[in-house]
Amino acid sequence: MAIITLMTDFGIKDGNVGVMKGVIWGIAPGAQIADLSHTISPQNLREAALVLARSARYFPPGTIHVVVVDPGVGTVRRHIAAQLGTQYFVGPDNGVITMLLEHAEAQGWPVKIVHTHKSEYWLADVSHVFHGRDVFSPIAAHLANGVPLLDLGTLIEDPVLLTLPHPQHTLFGWQGEVIHIDHFGNISTNIIKENLGEPDSIQVSLCGVNIDGMVHTFGERSPGELVALYGSTGNLIISVVNGNAAQRLGAAVGDLVEVTVN
Amino acid sequence: MAIITLMTDFGIKDGNVGVMKGVIWGIAPGAQIADLSHTISPQNLREAALVLARSARYFPPGTIHVVVVDPGVGTVRRHIAAQLGTQYFVGPDNGVITMLLEHAEAQGWPVKIVHTHKSEYWLADVSHVFHGRDVFSPIAAHLANGVPLLDLGTLIEDPVLLTLPHPQHTLFGWQGEVIHIDHFGNISTNIIKENLGEPDSIQVSLCGVNIDGMVHTFGERSPGELVALYGSTGNLIISVVNGNAAQRLGAAVGDLVEVTVN
Amino acid sequence: MAIITLMTDFGIKDGNVGVMKGVIWGIAPGAQIADLSHTISPQNLREAALVLARSARYFPPGTIHVVVVDPGVGTVRRHIAAQLGTQYFVGPDNGVITMLLEHAEAQGWPVKIVHTHKSEYWLADVSHVFHGRDVFSPIAAHLANGVPLLDLGTLIEDPVLLTLPHPQHTLFGWQGEVIHIDHFGNISTNIIKENLGEPDSIQVSLCGVNIDGMVHTFGERSPGELVALYGSTGNLIISVVNGNAAQRLGAAVGDLVEVTVN
Repeated sequence: MAIITLMTDFGIKDGNVGVMKGVIWGIAPGAQIADLSHTISPQNLREAALVLARSARYFPPGTIHVVVVDPGVGTVRRHIAAQLGTQYFVGPDNGVITMLLEHAEAQGWPVKIVHTHKSEYWLADVSHVFHGRDVFSPIAAHLANGVPLLDLGTLIEDPVLLTLPHPQHTLFGWQGEVIHIDHFGNISTNIIKENLGEPDSIQVSLCGVNIDGMVHTFGERSPGELVALYGSTGNLIISVVNGNAAQRLGAAVGDLVEVTVN
Repeated sequence: MAIITLMTDFGIKDGNVGVMKGVIWGIAPGAQIADLSHTISPQNLREAALVLARSARYFPPGTIHVVVVDPGVGTVRRHIAAQLGTQYFVGPDNGVITMLLEHAEAQGWPVKIVHTHKSEYWLADVSHVFHGRDVFSPIAAHLANGVPLLDLGTLIEDPVLLTLPHPQHTLFGWQGEVIHIDHFGNISTNIIKENLGEPDSIQVSLCGVNIDGMVHTFGERSPGELVALYGSTGNLIISVVNGNAAQRLGAAVGDLVEVTVN
Repeated sequence: MAIITLMTDFGIKDGNVGVMKGVIWGIAPGAQIADLSHTISPQNLREAALVLARSARYFPPGTIHVVVVDPGVGTVRRHIAAQLGTQYFVGPDNGVITMLLEHAEAQGWPVKIVHTHKSEYWLADVSHVFHGRDVFSPIAAHLANGVPLLDLGTLIEDPVLLTLPHPQHTLFGWQGEVIHIDHFGNISTNIIKENLGEPDSIQVSLCGVNIDGMVHTFGERSPGELVALYGSTGNLIISVVNGNAAQRLGAAVGDLVEVTVN
């Protein structure tokens, strides 16, 4: 049976995520549902896009990702369903698929994006304020049941895309920025392994500190030490061994990161 | 296979919710389980009743809702299982079904409430302090397996009911109160669309501020504006566009809300 | 289909737990997955061991418990899979199975522990920093598919074990310590029912307060009263009725608890 993932900024206390599962199972009784995150910062599309891009590749072909971070709910913003390679996306047309779409296009995978305006695939009563329940969960469930993507609406060529910060090559290395702080306080940057390779000598600077050299993993250094390494998705991250780097450095998403390579 | 939902005030860190799933799957191996909320405020029966009433209607017929907010665990309080229309409830007899029961009776749906005293449907060892694991999960699993409701105990006619605040008609409109603050800080009131309809002119007053008119959805106004609208369940809510209304106004559950209609 | 439980210190916001489910379902499509906890305090092996020991017994035979609290990820620490009676464990070789292992040995259950070094049961690309995704989820999924434990690697006899605090018999009773604070602020100690039985007279002292006598459950006393009772796993706990004992007493894991019995 199809796998559906859910990502929202709804939090976990109000029952809204459970309700989406109820709606899905009412239409697609055997669907297997995994929560990706429901504590995306409210209305933070970049964070949702990042978590989606990091997660999707680990799910099997046919997986349907529902992402509802939706400050424009009930306004004229479109909603879409997309095929990106072997997987599917359902949600508001707000750019959270940007990274997945760029990756699919770079790989030459099949891409189809549909404006899902056909209301026969929604709940009968649609509120102005909770399309996760009334529109996106039903669409995902119908996809899980085998309804063809193109039956849900009309192909579009102009999905909303986010403008994402890309690292810049400098005279001495790379300049990028902080793009995520994880649960442990690890600081993730938009500078990736493909930018830096495995240099002999490297210095990472952010928030007024310099870190010389990189390690392969946390446990190579003593608890409390500040280290730079590649994270689980190949991004340059800055961590404190068994500690919280973001708290230590006062780092925030958007902060400048400079890397000098020799 | 049957769907079971779980709602508790247990939090998510101690493993207690996972344990309930283990007990359920030990008895009903294929049951599909959805978490509704496990961060109900400790011992807050009204909050649990509200989340249950808002959520249940979106689950398919046959769904079994287990709600364990149980300050009286291990005392003489009864535990019950109930059929409310096409769905089931299992939990302490503490009133969290009040809204669902009123709705079922208003609709003329079949209602049966059973004092579930037959211990052959519980775990063999029952603690004094964790009936969610020892009593309610097993009962729900047996129901999921097709055990008839009436086999679990004895019909009762006097379930505990909560006294819930109802809005009052006034000379100029309606007077109600704040009944829920959601994850985004949206303020939900007990005044509903059936009370107000779609009036030409409306003024909402709470916490010392007045809001003129209603919108259909958040995105009709600019970020930071205070708006009144109908929430996803038809209740009058007060929100800050892309912001937190409860923090802005210092609102709390129980606060007075006055609506003037012309 | 096999049941897999997941416990980590990853938190719930970054998508990492969802990713583990994606990996599992990619290998074992029908696996049923229950979250035990993902908010174990970072790197807190004792807490993970405790939650695991309290939870595992309530899952059916064949259940596979994946526990990833892994400050040594990517270093030379081994990873293991174990059969402990009728259930299985997968994770870093860091001692979180200590209590389950002691219990299995005390019961005379079959015990086998395997160093899971055969990389054909891992993902093809293994990061240095996220073995929950790259190593442990795939191993658990292969176990769920029926791969024999011994195929995953080599039997070992020397798993890492935690040194856990055991209560001491004193002249007047028992001396132990606080081992867990739960979501409600209940204070759990390592003194158990088997130590104390049901004494006629008992006094519990911790954090500068004395509690005379024990109750069977919270509701025997008035809200706000401090009580001692046996928790849901038979440990002596100290609670405030409908309140937060840990906050009231300023209690923390490791605090001394003295019990005088007559």
